[in-house]
Amino acid sequence: MAHCNEKYLNLQSACLFDEINEKQNAYKESHPDADIISLDIEDGTQPLAPSAAEAMKKAVDEMSRGGTFPGCGPEQGYLFLREAIAKNDFQSRGCDISPDEIFVSDGEKYDIGNMQEIFAESDIAAITDPVYSPYVDSNVLAGRGGKFINGAYSKLEYLPCYEECDFKANLPQHDPMIIYLCSPNNPTGTALNKSNLTMWVKYAKQTGAVIFFDAAYEAFITEPNIPHSIYEIEGAKDVAIEFRSYSETAGLTGLRCGYCVVPKELMLETKKDDKVSANELWKCHQRAKFKGCSYIVQRGAEASYTEEGKKQIQAALAAYRENAKIIMDACEESGLNAYGGINSPYIWAAVPEGMTSWEFFDFLLDKAQVICSPGSGLGLCGEGFIRLTSFNTPELTKAAAERMKKALKEL
Amino acid sequence: MAHCNEKYLNLQSACLFDEINEKQNAYKESHPDADIISLDIEDGTQPLAPSAAEAMKKAVDEMSRGGTFPGCGPEQGYLFLREAIAKNDFQSRGCDISPDEIFVSDGEKYDIGNMQEIFAESDIAAITDPVYSPYVDSNVLAGRGGKFINGAYSKLEYLPCYEECDFKANLPQHDPMIIYLCSPNNPTGTALNKSNLTMWVKYAKQTGAVIFFDAAYEAFITEPNIPHSIYEIEGAKDVAIEFRSYSETAGLTGLRCGYCVVPKELMLETKKDDKVSANELWKCHQRAKFKGCSYIVQRGAEASYTEEGKKQIQAALAAYRENAKIIMDACEESGLNAYGGINSPYIWAAVPEGMTSWEFFDFLLDKAQVICSPGSGLGLCGEGFIRLTSFNTPELTKAAAERMKKALKEL
Repeated sequence: MAHCNEKYLNLQSACLFDEINEKQNAYKESHPDADIISLDIEDGTQPLAPSAAEAMKKAVDEMSRGGTFPGCGPEQGYLFLREAIAKNDFQSRGCDISPDEIFVSDGEKYDIGNMQEIFAESDIAAITDPVYSPYVDSNVLAGRGGKFINGAYSKLEYLPCYEECDFKANLPQHDPMIIYLCSPNNPTGTALNKSNLTMWVKYAKQTGAVIFFDAAYEAFITEPNIPHSIYEIEGAKDVAIEFRSYSETAGLTGLRCGYCVVPKELMLETKKDDKVSANELWKCHQRAKFKGCSYIVQRGAEASYTEEGKKQIQAALAAYRENAKIIMDACEESGLNAYGGINSPYIWAAVPEGMTSWEFFDFLLDKAQVICSPGSGLGLCGEGFIRLTSFNTPELTKAAAERMKKALKEL
Repeated sequence: MAHCNEKYLNLQSACLFDEINEKQNAYKESHPDADIISLDIEDGTQPLAPSAAEAMKKAVDEMSRGGTFPGCGPEQGYLFLREAIAKNDFQSRGCDISPDEIFVSDGEKYDIGNMQEIFAESDIAAITDPVYSPYVDSNVLAGRGGKFINGAYSKLEYLPCYEECDFKANLPQHDPMIIYLCSPNNPTGTALNKSNLTMWVKYAKQTGAVIFFDAAYEAFITEPNIPHSIYEIEGAKDVAIEFRSYSETAGLTGLRCGYCVVPKELMLETKKDDKVSANELWKCHQRAKFKGCSYIVQRGAEASYTEEGKKQIQAALAAYRENAKIIMDACEESGLNAYGGINSPYIWAAVPEGMTSWEFFDFLLDKAQVICSPGSGLGLCGEGFIRLTSFNTPELTKAAAERMKKALKEL
């Protein structure tokens, strides 16, 4: 009989969002009239940027003409988009990234879930705690997890992010060769500044580690000392792969488009100490398993780089930032320590003393009909926190904030 | 220093289409006025089905309204599409497939490239020869290839498909646990009938193997005794995973949408002889690494199941069938043995005696300015054949056929 990949059996099947849904559904059943507001949504509610919408309709028309319409494009993405990316996202910030270092995909989760495949299974992966779970799960499926004991995988290196240290991780201790850094961070909403990132790049250079830099939320950055790309740090091209998302960019959620940058300088080592290009290895991966992102969608992504598109995206961002401020203010008024929200769509709030994350989740659902993400579902260090997102509509965000304040006043 | 996945080093980097492009570009350079016609294209040239175009524009409009627009959908695909698939592609043919056995993706290459991941690395994979190369490459990257010796990977089981046996493979001899069957076949254009498929299902039941059934070209089937789905064969749900593509369906190329069916009955074995559900394992894979196909694209795919959509797709198919007939007739007139074309967009033609596949490629390029795919690039058993596709426009297909006839007359 065919055998399963036993590495898959190590994966803890519990999914935070399933648990949240179950609780929500149970509550709805016992309170059929409850008007629940979700502050755990990860998808934006602002309209699709009109310039992207227009570009996509035009692309549909192009495909409708037949004859010369673009079929499946190159696996790596159409050159028109890769050129726009190189120019707008990198060269404009002084980062020397060329189109052949860019790989367009159908979303960042695909890239960040699969990139570890080009690395040896024996290389240790380090993740910050709390964490975006696909970093963990994809490594567990690849055999880098080991046993799940007391809420943690034995072979992963967890880098705790404590409130006392602004949720910034210390350097690892077990020589991981793959290090996941997400800035601005999901879930804590905090961001690494230039000095923090310089430290990580230096560390990677010294140890030979590769940084998986998840910059999905870079569009939300407002503070000037927060790098938008790790390639703003000198030498980062030797040690870092960067992941970007259009889905998380305001006004483009649900497009399913993202990209990663695998610099030509980045080399991995064979057992015989030969050097191989990570860019070439990823190209192999894509050729064997991917056939390119939809032409329509790539035209939509390209439109986000026009002057018009940039303005529209800034307008959507402004709405989310306003939401974040409303949530932050509500937390402050209620005496909850809250973080993030300034360079990020996420607010990370400490729960009232004596409660666990899930207890506070239950409290907010029961007393305010507001849904949050319990931090303990995002890592051991997430216990005692909840994550709130600024992706809902302004009206519902305001209503949720008022309800939270009222409920917490009565606590 | 970080280590590479050494399995990647086994992959032969030569890509057939790169070689073809190189030859084509060299020819263009030395013959700047040459008017080359490609009969190796894999993307359709018929217009996008108007109903799909309309549905996608409507989806763009929905996303443009904001507030309630659908963001990233479920990893498994929207229920509206999975229900349409279950009803139209399976239940209508008497196959008992339910929406929770269907996984929508951004294209068949993704599914068929990644599905092997849920299997043990030690399970042997069998492929027919000649073959669609991602079957081979994805297994090589996963460690099932072994060394590349004399044009073949040592650990794969190749099932030769000879002209004398209608390009149908015999049963394997090395107990492979993963068997790739593509019907209608790329590249040979031939299709397995009900008896052939029943034999394979019986074999799989007896040995415990799992069939990866690639039905990407099922829309091209015209003959009544050719199953459109492997689930038309009794018992196939216990032993087969099916892969489908909208990109290959006439009129939807370049959408980037596909799906696979992982039946709930299909079990894999652990080392301890426990049974685990392949459906659950694939769900784990998708949750960790995939975030769903674009809403816009899924609405386009759904439209292909409307009465209007079906008619439009049939019209596109008719055009490709006409092209196939023109190519088949040209081969016959020229004395080339040609196969396929009836249930498939592909024609597999034997080259004139004394020539290799590449020599005939060079001949057609030089004497007719027609591009084909040399069969030897698709497997050892492909030597002596070329693949021609019916995906070009009727005008260019006719012109290419005339040129081929003329050139072969003068041979």
